[in-house]
Amino acid sequence: MDRKGIFITIEGPEGAGKTTVISEIGKRLQNEGHKVLLTREPGGIKIAEDIRGIILDNDNTAMDPKTEALLYAAARRQHLVEKVIPALAEGYLVLCDRFVDSSLAYQGHARGIGIDDIMKINEFAIDGLMPDLTIFFDIDPAEGLARVMNNQEREQNRLDKEALSFHESVYEGYEEVIRRYEQRIIRTDANLEKELVTENVYQIIASRFM
Amino acid sequence: MDRKGIFITIEGPEGAGKTTVISEIGKRLQNEGHKVLLTREPGGIKIAEDIRGIILDNDNTAMDPKTEALLYAAARRQHLVEKVIPALAEGYLVLCDRFVDSSLAYQGHARGIGIDDIMKINEFAIDGLMPDLTIFFDIDPAEGLARVMNNQEREQNRLDKEALSFHESVYEGYEEVIRRYEQRIIRTDANLEKELVTENVYQIIASRFM
Repeated sequence: MDRKGIFITIEGPEGAGKTTVISEIGKRLQNEGHKVLLTREPGGIKIAEDIRGIILDNDNTAMDPKTEALLYAAARRQHLVEKVIPALAEGYLVLCDRFVDSSLAYQGHARGIGIDDIMKINEFAIDGLMPDLTIFFDIDPAEGLARVMNNQEREQNRLDKEALSFHESVYEGYEEVIRRYEQRIIRTDANLEKELVTENVYQIIASRFM
Repeated sequence: MDRKGIFITIEGPEGAGKTTVISEIGKRLQNEGHKVLLTREPGGIKIAEDIRGIILDNDNTAMDPKTEALLYAAARRQHLVEKVIPALAEGYLVLCDRFVDSSLAYQGHARGIGIDDIMKINEFAIDGLMPDLTIFFDIDPAEGLARVMNNQEREQNRLDKEALSFHESVYEGYEEVIRRYEQRIIRTDANLEKELVTENVYQIIASRFM
């Protein structure tokens, strides 16, 4: 692949405010004339949407954690091939809401499968296309979960209904992932006001790539 | 897992006659008083059926080969957890129509992903639960394909429509897989009359496990 673009992923627990901040950053970068693609798996890619539909189906509570992990990897692969790789080849800055690190924290650590095993199937799925930079939205998991539960506009899915202990375990998983990839992953304080988080994330990106 | 049962898988190209023979063998073993489970992925397991539906959807021609491989591994995992493992724990002889070797031959060799890479994601999916015995239905791929095309009762899906060259490549893949696992995989001549194939397969199973 001719990788002319920049691939940035955003990670963090539920309720960290990633979506709002990414939208603001995207507008700002586009106003400055940059070619920006905002995306998140499954990202409107039909096959990936179909796969995500199976994962989030409230009838599928019998799903084994390893089945879930393989489905996330499959949706990731298709989204990457149909959307991210073509955009990078055209020189876009791709801002992707969640990527491999989410699987490492959620399935690898919180579901107990193991970070190394989850990395193996994700290496298969992404073929070496790791992000140039990852920004971790650092928020207390209880605060993040409270934000999700108080957000009436958002439809709660199977994952949102998990207990706080699971969200705490996800946070521990991210801590481990950050230790492993400290060169790639930068933390930002997501407890701050959204305007300030947006400004901080903008500065991280601008200082590296603009 | 308490593995009291026997796990046998049946492999071979399209049109090798596996389904008919397995059905006959199953009846014969049950008549002799054995506890037998005949199955094939997705095997009526809802989550696995949902996944297989995505793979075989004629609208999904944009599916990347690695996405397909991850989906097969996901369906395999769920079928194993919900159906095969419980049956083995209860002492059943499980006869499964296609398993890991199909992915190695189809995705690994014929789709060009590589047998080693496909084995990695399948090792993740099956957690060491390889078959006790695998019987390979050996048939000339052109003959197998001709049987599929002449069978009006069978609805042709996306895979059946592949060209002969693909079916030949699948056969080459099986040859490689048999070389790697020669202790586990036994060939049977599937060009013979069905009654004779059935008898031969029965004898292979009886000589090892009865």
